[in-house]
Amino acid sequence: MAKNQKLVEQITSMEDDFAQWYTDIVKKAELVDYSSVRGCVIFRPYAYAIWENIQSTLDKKFKETGHENVYMPMLIPENLLQKEKDHVEGFAPEVAWVTQGGNEQLTERLCVRPTSETLFCEHYAKIVQSYKDLPKLYNQWCSVVRWEKTTRPFLRTTEFLWQEGHTIHATKEEAEEETIRMLNVYADVCENLLAIPVVKGRKTEKEKFAGAEATYTIESLMHDGKALQSGTSHFFGQNFAKAFGIQFSDKTGKLEYVNQTSWGMTTRIIGAVIMVHGDDEGLKLPPRVAPIQVVIVPIAQHKEGVIDKATELKDKISKIARVKLDISDKMPGWKFSEYEMKGVPIRLEVGPKDIEKNQVVLVRRDTREKIFVSMDELETKIPELLEDIHNSMYEAAKKAREEKTSSAKTMDEFKDIVENKTGFVKAMWCGDRSCEDKIKEDTGATSRCIPFEQEEVSDTCVCCGKKATKMVYWGRAY
Amino acid sequence: MAKNQKLVEQITSMEDDFAQWYTDIVKKAELVDYSSVRGCVIFRPYAYAIWENIQSTLDKKFKETGHENVYMPMLIPENLLQKEKDHVEGFAPEVAWVTQGGNEQLTERLCVRPTSETLFCEHYAKIVQSYKDLPKLYNQWCSVVRWEKTTRPFLRTTEFLWQEGHTIHATKEEAEEETIRMLNVYADVCENLLAIPVVKGRKTEKEKFAGAEATYTIESLMHDGKALQSGTSHFFGQNFAKAFGIQFSDKTGKLEYVNQTSWGMTTRIIGAVIMVHGDDEGLKLPPRVAPIQVVIVPIAQHKEGVIDKATELKDKISKIARVKLDISDKMPGWKFSEYEMKGVPIRLEVGPKDIEKNQVVLVRRDTREKIFVSMDELETKIPELLEDIHNSMYEAAKKAREEKTSSAKTMDEFKDIVENKTGFVKAMWCGDRSCEDKIKEDTGATSRCIPFEQEEVSDTCVCCGKKATKMVYWGRAY
Repeated sequence: MAKNQKLVEQITSMEDDFAQWYTDIVKKAELVDYSSVRGCVIFRPYAYAIWENIQSTLDKKFKETGHENVYMPMLIPENLLQKEKDHVEGFAPEVAWVTQGGNEQLTERLCVRPTSETLFCEHYAKIVQSYKDLPKLYNQWCSVVRWEKTTRPFLRTTEFLWQEGHTIHATKEEAEEETIRMLNVYADVCENLLAIPVVKGRKTEKEKFAGAEATYTIESLMHDGKALQSGTSHFFGQNFAKAFGIQFSDKTGKLEYVNQTSWGMTTRIIGAVIMVHGDDEGLKLPPRVAPIQVVIVPIAQHKEGVIDKATELKDKISKIARVKLDISDKMPGWKFSEYEMKGVPIRLEVGPKDIEKNQVVLVRRDTREKIFVSMDELETKIPELLEDIHNSMYEAAKKAREEKTSSAKTMDEFKDIVENKTGFVKAMWCGDRSCEDKIKEDTGATSRCIPFEQEEVSDTCVCCGKKATKMVYWGRAY
Repeated sequence: MAKNQKLVEQITSMEDDFAQWYTDIVKKAELVDYSSVRGCVIFRPYAYAIWENIQSTLDKKFKETGHENVYMPMLIPENLLQKEKDHVEGFAPEVAWVTQGGNEQLTERLCVRPTSETLFCEHYAKIVQSYKDLPKLYNQWCSVVRWEKTTRPFLRTTEFLWQEGHTIHATKEEAEEETIRMLNVYADVCENLLAIPVVKGRKTEKEKFAGAEATYTIESLMHDGKALQSGTSHFFGQNFAKAFGIQFSDKTGKLEYVNQTSWGMTTRIIGAVIMVHGDDEGLKLPPRVAPIQVVIVPIAQHKEGVIDKATELKDKISKIARVKLDISDKMPGWKFSEYEMKGVPIRLEVGPKDIEKNQVVLVRRDTREKIFVSMDELETKIPELLEDIHNSMYEAAKKAREEKTSSAKTMDEFKDIVENKTGFVKAMWCGDRSCEDKIKEDTGATSRCIPFEQEEVSDTCVCCGKKATKMVYWGRAY
């Protein structure tokens, strides 16, 4: 490994300092660059390509489930933001305000959208008249701005990229179904695209979205034992509909308010990919989302026939996988660590001796296993291997999460887990806000969700000892 | 046509009032809705789907020519915007300023990006060291804000969607090649996706982009005889590189400044599609960009077997074209005018009598021609017909443009064309700004471009009579 030393030694070990390890990776894997703009990062080509893959997978699923894309303005007049009371209270403290346009001082401030419920509502109120106009299933791809005090690439930035779905329905039941349907889409994308297992559940009243009746969430667990909210889906009931007057005449001609949902997934999920899968060599990308699935590194590329053969292999593989051939003048060892840092799932080495034997060497990024494969079998072996890497990475992440998921029956057990073992704590809760507050104060852990899959850890609240109503996942979180 | 009357009578005739006709179409074809946000429109699903088709075609071409997508922050600190003198002078008067974040007053104003040269430059200065790092070929999909006084949907809005390419190169020649390459990509998309013929050329000094050494443009001609700038590509030389210190060491180790380009196409092009192809029945979409290429309208759909057969045809056609089946309870005549308004290229009618004869009726939106086709031949006939519609629309647009392109040797001729015939005026120019200003003052026409394909209309400047250096396309413009 001496050849790789230079690159590798620049990364902090994850066990020594997880936060610094994360910062090193986002920089060295060329995911982001810091800008001179407060709290905003630049998504470099490699990170943006990951986002494009997430985007196209989600977008396809949205369209398959009947959704249409639209685009709303990025600026929201202050009076519009104020129409729904809980919503403005939740967001006003963290928005950026435009107060000047050209050389004129505006008579009304405009906020840069932190989320677009208000704009969708205003539009829906205009275009919906009859039950025949329902449902409206809209989605929007855009960036939003929230004036954060402390920021970290992907995890919390002043501006981030996301999609926001906003739908309206004739009945409460339909809207509730939609809320769960989209939560399941997110869970599916986490598990089947990103190889990240998630816990599905409902947020407590304290943790729900500003203006929602219910917020559903998928929660994932990072390598350092902290949780990350990975996607949310909100049921609004008629809260916004009443504030904005979104009414329709039903089959009998009676005027009714619509029932509404919204749901979003953000570039924050890239942070989860880094922190669930990465190691001390760098990023480790799940194959289905990796911008480069196979990197070809020629060995002794100056020798006759090597680059020709590598190019031939590249052309062949490009039909079945996203492949890159690196014929730059760097040493192979240097290239090895560069693509390990970038988390490319498979490295293909081919040199004069391999060519003689009509074989190549495949090296898995996840297990570092080396496999010798005949050149004639590449078209079947590579897809199989990519599939296997996805499954192994998912299983490894699931195992890690299970090892870091513990049950607590008492506050002592609870504190011990949070401080020493870290990870998810499953514990019973009476349902009172005061216990939720006290747990946070005493341990730093917040309620992550009330999982759909309930277990009876005990029959009393871990905090107050009164009768428990629900089992809750708790944890320190990003 | 009596059945269609209700919808059709709501549209102003284009000959009576072209501006009102345009406004009617964007509303009735459900392209946009007005928002309560000053000068911003909502891109409704149908308009956004058109944009998605333009986007995916452009994006594919960008990637094929080696470009990578990135994402830069939407906010630019004032001092960064000011680094290139001409650039800030051009843009500062029309930007929106963020002055408050959360509850705090910012110490430095941030502008909402009107364009992102400055951010790309700041980033490039950090990531480029050696000639080996060049070229960098980046593109970004986003929205930008320009504080416009008067706005019209697509054509001029406070916020619009676009892509902005920003590239840096080791040599002037490479950068110039890139500038022309991307102009050609735009021309190709206009002609082959949107069926809009364009004139390629260079902008005069007066009309070029703020901070550029040269701006190239594609210009198209609308039905009312006004020109529309449809895409631009800028060569910056080393202007920005010097302002931002973007240097690299060349092969000999000498420090050099990079040469730079930028190029953009915007949602304004949707306005061109409307105004080049539309008619008094509404929108007329070129097949390759149409979100719905074939709409199936069942006749007497309550009769047994009609909806089944229509569904069967839909499934079949969905393999070769974007198809929609409308089984809503509206009258067929109402559906006819609705999809004519929406510019769907082919309407397929199928009723009990057609089913008996194993045939359908295809109606072209462009020529209104009716064609009877056997159900067994649909898979070959529909793609052929879509192809033919594209070609016919392109030829019709080209013919219309040629009829509205005239040469002028004197200012009297020039004025007569602009006022009575309208359209492009080809006229010679001495190269002096004063003549360009005078022509605008006297006629309202601006120089659209100095076309690559030069002709010698005469040998003297149409304005001052001095020796001419170039033939220029002039016209009133959007």
